[in-house]
Amino acid sequence: MFYFIGLGLGDAEDITVKGLRIVKAAKRVYLESYTSIITGGKEKLEEFYGREIILADREMVEQNSDEILKDADKEDVALLVVGDPFGATTHTDFILRAKELNIEYTTIHNASIMNAVGCCGLQLYHFGQTVSIVFWTETSKPDSFYDKIAVNRKNGFHTLCLLDIKVKEQTIENLMRGRKIYEPPRYMPCSLAAEQLLEIIENKKEDGETDLAFNEDTICVGLGRVGCANQKIVAAKLKEFPCIDMGEPLHSFIITGNMHLMEIDMLKMFALEPTTIK
Amino acid sequence: MFYFIGLGLGDAEDITVKGLRIVKAAKRVYLESYTSIITGGKEKLEEFYGREIILADREMVEQNSDEILKDADKEDVALLVVGDPFGATTHTDFILRAKELNIEYTTIHNASIMNAVGCCGLQLYHFGQTVSIVFWTETSKPDSFYDKIAVNRKNGFHTLCLLDIKVKEQTIENLMRGRKIYEPPRYMPCSLAAEQLLEIIENKKEDGETDLAFNEDTICVGLGRVGCANQKIVAAKLKEFPCIDMGEPLHSFIITGNMHLMEIDMLKMFALEPTTIK
Repeated sequence: MFYFIGLGLGDAEDITVKGLRIVKAAKRVYLESYTSIITGGKEKLEEFYGREIILADREMVEQNSDEILKDADKEDVALLVVGDPFGATTHTDFILRAKELNIEYTTIHNASIMNAVGCCGLQLYHFGQTVSIVFWTETSKPDSFYDKIAVNRKNGFHTLCLLDIKVKEQTIENLMRGRKIYEPPRYMPCSLAAEQLLEIIENKKEDGETDLAFNEDTICVGLGRVGCANQKIVAAKLKEFPCIDMGEPLHSFIITGNMHLMEIDMLKMFALEPTTIK
Repeated sequence: MFYFIGLGLGDAEDITVKGLRIVKAAKRVYLESYTSIITGGKEKLEEFYGREIILADREMVEQNSDEILKDADKEDVALLVVGDPFGATTHTDFILRAKELNIEYTTIHNASIMNAVGCCGLQLYHFGQTVSIVFWTETSKPDSFYDKIAVNRKNGFHTLCLLDIKVKEQTIENLMRGRKIYEPPRYMPCSLAAEQLLEIIENKKEDGETDLAFNEDTICVGLGRVGCANQKIVAAKLKEFPCIDMGEPLHSFIITGNMHLMEIDMLKMFALEPTTIK
């Protein structure tokens, strides 16, 4: 049996009792290491599980999935994923490959940012489509997520923005020369997401657009390390976020839509300035 | 400290290791018993935890929250919630009350239907707003969720429909006479949700509407007992669902939007007829 096991969002102890039982008994255990991070990393997990685990980077999961799936029809193999196994597209691909190989699979679900985000007090069923905000470079500033936020805002929905993670990225030069030298990992902070969002609306204003989806005074919510002991939530105006330090990664960001009374009451608990949230 | 602990979606073993540690050590442990169900119920949980737990019905959580919160500033008290603690509005209300009483709280997240629904292969970030479908009566047939589904479909989004749960409901007669006699619990099956959805579009057709949000051939996904060992997923046309038996509760239902190639490949795994999903 192949097991897809969610680790939740915090530390080693956030695995479920069922997940831990399977991890302890499995023949091989892999840790998917590029769509999120877990407090303490691989070493803490190994210590907690009392067993060896194998790091699976993007290359391994996407191109050598057969290596991970090897013999999973005869013995138990587990792939650990921070959050819930179905948070990222790449894992769906993995399931399809298992199916092709006639390997049965079981999913052990856990919390992901997609539901844990409710901790800020905004109701999950008032969220529209989730978007991803990617790192800009000097030559590439994709902003297609703006239109998605616009659709959400127009319908009164909040937007959860997942912020970019760059792990094991190569410079163009290293990539072209085939050198497996990787850049240090980068995790987008709320401050940078806010800067990029502000730049998009500035550009749109310069282009003469008047009906903007949001503006610098729109109430946003920054979330740092949701589900961890040092979780931090701040509600403030968009223009305030470039100067707000949300601490270590991972961060997520919310652009609010229409707010209900109870949502406002909850956000007040996290407000940068008590008078901002009305 | 007051602990809000998610139990996940399956059985007693789906609590996290951290959650279990807190439950074992807490002074009092309550189980919220009206927004969802857990396999085995209170007895199985007590056996697994090796301790007594107190059932908290809607009345207790909504009107006697101070009883649950009593002394939580001095000792550890936990409220167990099936799924994730922030799945239901009523729990947000609870947090606000704790804050008023100056009681600190910690959340132990877990999987909820809001993220575990990814197991059917539809990508979480292609979902729009989640809706609730309630039981109709002869005199009351609310269909306001139709407009929300329409907004989602217009934008290409899938819609997760949470299906109604009636626990500890009283007949109007018993309510008026103040008799605390409760009806047996009812959980809406996918078949009934589909019937109500089909009736709505029939009514709209009769009213001369032509631009319907979906029709009887729209691909939908029925989900039974997500996260449980006997989970069942079926993808079929809406008109087929009134005759599909998804088994025991709980059920959820999805009305698909635009589908990407990988989503179609995944749904084929669960298709009633292999040729339906194209």
